[in-house]
Amino acid sequence: MIRHGQSLWNQENRFTGWADVDLTPQGIAEAQEAGRLLKEAGFTFDLAHTSLLKRAVRTLWHVQETMDLMWLPVVTTWRLNERHYGALTGLNKAETAARYGEKQVLVWRRSYDVPPPALKPEANVSAGDARYAGLAPGEMPLTECLKDTVARVLPYWHETLAPAIRAGRRVVVSAHGNSMRALIKYLDGISDEDIVELNVPNGVPLVYEFDDALKPVRRYYLGDQAAIAAKMAAVAQQGKAKA
Amino acid sequence: MIRHGQSLWNQENRFTGWADVDLTPQGIAEAQEAGRLLKEAGFTFDLAHTSLLKRAVRTLWHVQETMDLMWLPVVTTWRLNERHYGALTGLNKAETAARYGEKQVLVWRRSYDVPPPALKPEANVSAGDARYAGLAPGEMPLTECLKDTVARVLPYWHETLAPAIRAGRRVVVSAHGNSMRALIKYLDGISDEDIVELNVPNGVPLVYEFDDALKPVRRYYLGDQAAIAAKMAAVAQQGKAKA
Repeated sequence: MIRHGQSLWNQENRFTGWADVDLTPQGIAEAQEAGRLLKEAGFTFDLAHTSLLKRAVRTLWHVQETMDLMWLPVVTTWRLNERHYGALTGLNKAETAARYGEKQVLVWRRSYDVPPPALKPEANVSAGDARYAGLAPGEMPLTECLKDTVARVLPYWHETLAPAIRAGRRVVVSAHGNSMRALIKYLDGISDEDIVELNVPNGVPLVYEFDDALKPVRRYYLGDQAAIAAKMAAVAQQGKAKA
Repeated sequence: MIRHGQSLWNQENRFTGWADVDLTPQGIAEAQEAGRLLKEAGFTFDLAHTSLLKRAVRTLWHVQETMDLMWLPVVTTWRLNERHYGALTGLNKAETAARYGEKQVLVWRRSYDVPPPALKPEANVSAGDARYAGLAPGEMPLTECLKDTVARVLPYWHETLAPAIRAGRRVVVSAHGNSMRALIKYLDGISDEDIVELNVPNGVPLVYEFDDALKPVRRYYLGDQAAIAAKMAAVAQQGKAKA
């Protein structure tokens, strides 16, 4: 699994969610480095899964290119999209604090089941977007708490990813901070309280190895562990920045 | 359908076949132009199909990026690969003529059912390549005449592309000169003699519109028709070049 490299709105510290924001040059370099690490460690894949958002797709493309795996089939799904941030989408942390108050922002950051204010349906640009035409009525979110994200990611694990892995296929998943939190929470049995404190670094391969019952037997970030810890701290800090 | 943009070996006038050669900068520009033409003409897609060769995949990626369709699922298959050129793979036209004689080269160029000399199985690098691991015994070619290419492309039309189109999905196919000839031959009912004279220009969208019975009702290259005619003439000339 790989969280996409730095995006333009990561850089500007804005809530991105379902906004289709591209990678920065740093994000592209991170994606290429992820591919290089995977290749050097001897990994290869049979199949790729990603979201419908270009920062995850482009991250995957750079990984594929670096690993000489451009020929992989690529399955795309809204279920791997980032958490939908509702009315916060596009706001930076300062704007959010000015509009809703520091205290409320802290509640949204720390809580597993309190969603930000919902978008008005007429303000939800995703609803008219062809890539979401396949969603069933009621599936299109107008906001999500992490619990909601978990609820729509897990069917994809059970119905698509798990059967592929069980069939022996080596799967690469390029996704987002919160869709990865959803998978990690399930796979590692992390509590509602602890999962919101878990920070996924951008562009670092997170390797899961499973036993035959699909229980994770090993889980690790690939690469220089001190640099990864610094990246995770930077992601945690990002949520706290005032500017 | 789009034939990939110019590749390094198109430029050097070498038989490429299943060799996994990348696009030139001109090839990238052609792919982007194809995407721009499709977007300007109001096309959009639900699904992408391509070969296992990076010149076709990269062409598709540029089309997807230009059309803001990076989220499309991408199905990849060996059946859309270029014709396998056997022992000619990697040779330029001069080397081929020196080795086999001008007369024999003309036979291979003009014939529908005379394959070039087969690769020795131990010289066939594709056989050990993970991307071809799914081929059934006997499916891996060691050489192909155009008739052989047609024979392995058409099952993909009948079993995969036609059902998708029948279900109303708008499909973009990024492929190769001879896998496109195979589809065109079938769809337009072109004779064995005429199909070898049909030249597919690089990086120009070829649009098919079908009736409910999947009979083509309209077929045209998108873009400046004089420029396309010049490109087709250049492709025809390429086969004749001596250097």
